[in-house]
Amino acid sequence: MSVTAAKGFTAAGIAAGIKDSGGADLALVVNNGPRHAAAGVFTSNRVKAAPVLWSEQVLKGGQVSAVVLNSGGANACTGAPGFQDTHATAEKVAEALGHSAGEVAVASTGLIGTRLPMDKLLPGVDKAVAALSAHGGEKAAIAIKTTDTVHKTAVAEGAGWTVGGMAKGAGMLAPGLATMLVVLTTDAELDQPELDRALRAATRTTFDRIDSDGCMSTNDTVLLLSSGASGVTPGYDEFAEAVRTVCDDLGQQLIRDAEGASKDIRVEVVGAASEEDAVEAGRSIARNNLLKCALHGEDPNWGRVLSAIGTTSAAFEPDKLNVAINGVWVCKDGSVGEDRELVDMRFREVRITADLAAGSESAVIWTNDLTADYVHENSAYSS
Amino acid sequence: MSVTAAKGFTAAGIAAGIKDSGGADLALVVNNGPRHAAAGVFTSNRVKAAPVLWSEQVLKGGQVSAVVLNSGGANACTGAPGFQDTHATAEKVAEALGHSAGEVAVASTGLIGTRLPMDKLLPGVDKAVAALSAHGGEKAAIAIKTTDTVHKTAVAEGAGWTVGGMAKGAGMLAPGLATMLVVLTTDAELDQPELDRALRAATRTTFDRIDSDGCMSTNDTVLLLSSGASGVTPGYDEFAEAVRTVCDDLGQQLIRDAEGASKDIRVEVVGAASEEDAVEAGRSIARNNLLKCALHGEDPNWGRVLSAIGTTSAAFEPDKLNVAINGVWVCKDGSVGEDRELVDMRFREVRITADLAAGSESAVIWTNDLTADYVHENSAYSS
Repeated sequence: MSVTAAKGFTAAGIAAGIKDSGGADLALVVNNGPRHAAAGVFTSNRVKAAPVLWSEQVLKGGQVSAVVLNSGGANACTGAPGFQDTHATAEKVAEALGHSAGEVAVASTGLIGTRLPMDKLLPGVDKAVAALSAHGGEKAAIAIKTTDTVHKTAVAEGAGWTVGGMAKGAGMLAPGLATMLVVLTTDAELDQPELDRALRAATRTTFDRIDSDGCMSTNDTVLLLSSGASGVTPGYDEFAEAVRTVCDDLGQQLIRDAEGASKDIRVEVVGAASEEDAVEAGRSIARNNLLKCALHGEDPNWGRVLSAIGTTSAAFEPDKLNVAINGVWVCKDGSVGEDRELVDMRFREVRITADLAAGSESAVIWTNDLTADYVHENSAYSS
Repeated sequence: MSVTAAKGFTAAGIAAGIKDSGGADLALVVNNGPRHAAAGVFTSNRVKAAPVLWSEQVLKGGQVSAVVLNSGGANACTGAPGFQDTHATAEKVAEALGHSAGEVAVASTGLIGTRLPMDKLLPGVDKAVAALSAHGGEKAAIAIKTTDTVHKTAVAEGAGWTVGGMAKGAGMLAPGLATMLVVLTTDAELDQPELDRALRAATRTTFDRIDSDGCMSTNDTVLLLSSGASGVTPGYDEFAEAVRTVCDDLGQQLIRDAEGASKDIRVEVVGAASEEDAVEAGRSIARNNLLKCALHGEDPNWGRVLSAIGTTSAAFEPDKLNVAINGVWVCKDGSVGEDRELVDMRFREVRITADLAAGSESAVIWTNDLTADYVHENSAYSS
């Protein structure tokens, strides 16, 4: 289903020869209208890849008629020649489709610091255009995989309208692990400001709160394209909830496919004085390497949770903190609570609840454990 | 040599039975005067262990006549009973030595969240007092080891005076990895404000800039005790440099003994607009798990250096950044520089130079690589 679940979209995924493996590496998503309103959010890393710089400009116009995505190279830290490569890619897509290059978004993922093989990529665009299909969403999702073990798609249905999407990566927007690329499509009729508002609201509590390894990519891109082909204009709240549902679904798929991970860890901070405090404390817990190792070893080491909270500026008193791991309150009032032997750690999902006892706000951050496989995969990646 | 290299100090290290292994686990350092001026710096974690809360109070008085240190338990997150244990330990030392408990500092290291076995610790104090010796520095250094593979000591000599020290851990003050405990002693005659100034100046550019795994301990403690037994008052600058030399030496020993590490990584940020910018960028590079994995795999992955710099608020332009790894400028002007194949990664020490091209300030941060051994050691630690 993927990006072609909504009416008005065609897509393709083909092998252009960018990847040495010969696998699929070029995806194209085309919005056939009648409308072309679009919204996008991008990495907050100040070192941005050429396609991010390009697509940010495209999205300022509020109209996107096609998105071209490649795996096999991030086109980041490639200077002015790299930006020219992105520009040439957009021009090539525009020419092949009879659109304007100013409405063609570009996204790339792969190694930083190497130029894309344009002699393969540009002919690949022709091949992708020839393969465009109203059933091409699945192939497009496959073509953007890098270290992903599975391709990721999701769909939410409204009354006569649909939101669909695809994602690659095992990361997030800000921060971001491996690059996350996401394209969402809808046939609902909405104005650009509503699309933008719905997308930002959805990413703020989904992709922005998955923090697999605390590293932020140069290439993260999430786009939402509307064709209006259903002729239906849903209420904003209903539409926003559908977008959030698809983002949440894709985000969970990213966490479950994180490089080398053996645990999916849900960190919920409750009792916070503000949502910002809850997010800050949750992120600090989610990024603590010592805790991530302990959870890998199925050790409910709550001391490392307190130690992580202690590095934040969130409102709390150390002797009021409570921590539950998989439902057992192993830390009460900043000290030893229920017997840690009661914590069952056998399953892939681990639930940590940290109660700051300072208010009524909360937030959920998802992360993964730190494993020898993560080290192996990321030490061998570019060699 | 260690803490008994300076005149006026005795020390001991004995097995009190706190560690299940039966190894040495209790150290005592006594300042026999004639002076007892002291300074201390402690973890900036807001969740502080009981001995840190106690010793901060002691140091406010500016006088320390003895330090008692234990491995085998951190006495952190142990509530009011844990604080009473620390208090009782100080009282016991004071009673045995005929001092005031208000001049006895306490430091602990080991697992968070478990009470100390006071029935073993208190008799151990008598045993340690009986073992005090002007040659006991080495044994004291051995008794504070936890996961340390070697004990750490250092000495700097002035004209007629000495600064000596011992350390345990593989971490730092703020942030801190495994707990770092450091006791420095000197027989130089200095007033407390000068001791304090010299210690803070030294730790700011040594222990505070080793960042093995970005995690901050609840127990980090660095103390400087002066006996004045040499009768010599050195110039402040000369003394401060000796303290810095000993701190730097011990800090390097901590990095070289970091848990599971196979590389010692020197991150130097140059061309920064301010020292704060240099430290922020250096710490961001030093904490990037993806880079730390790449360096473990001997992969000079400069894209991950740029990606880490991009997450900071330091002054820089992305297309002006330069990065050298082991002397090879693999990134120039934010893009591909010299051939990465020229980088020789075979040795334990890795040198990264990041040039922000925004000023003339610089800073050095030390870190380690991320390895499967680190994961193993920290996932199996408490079980």
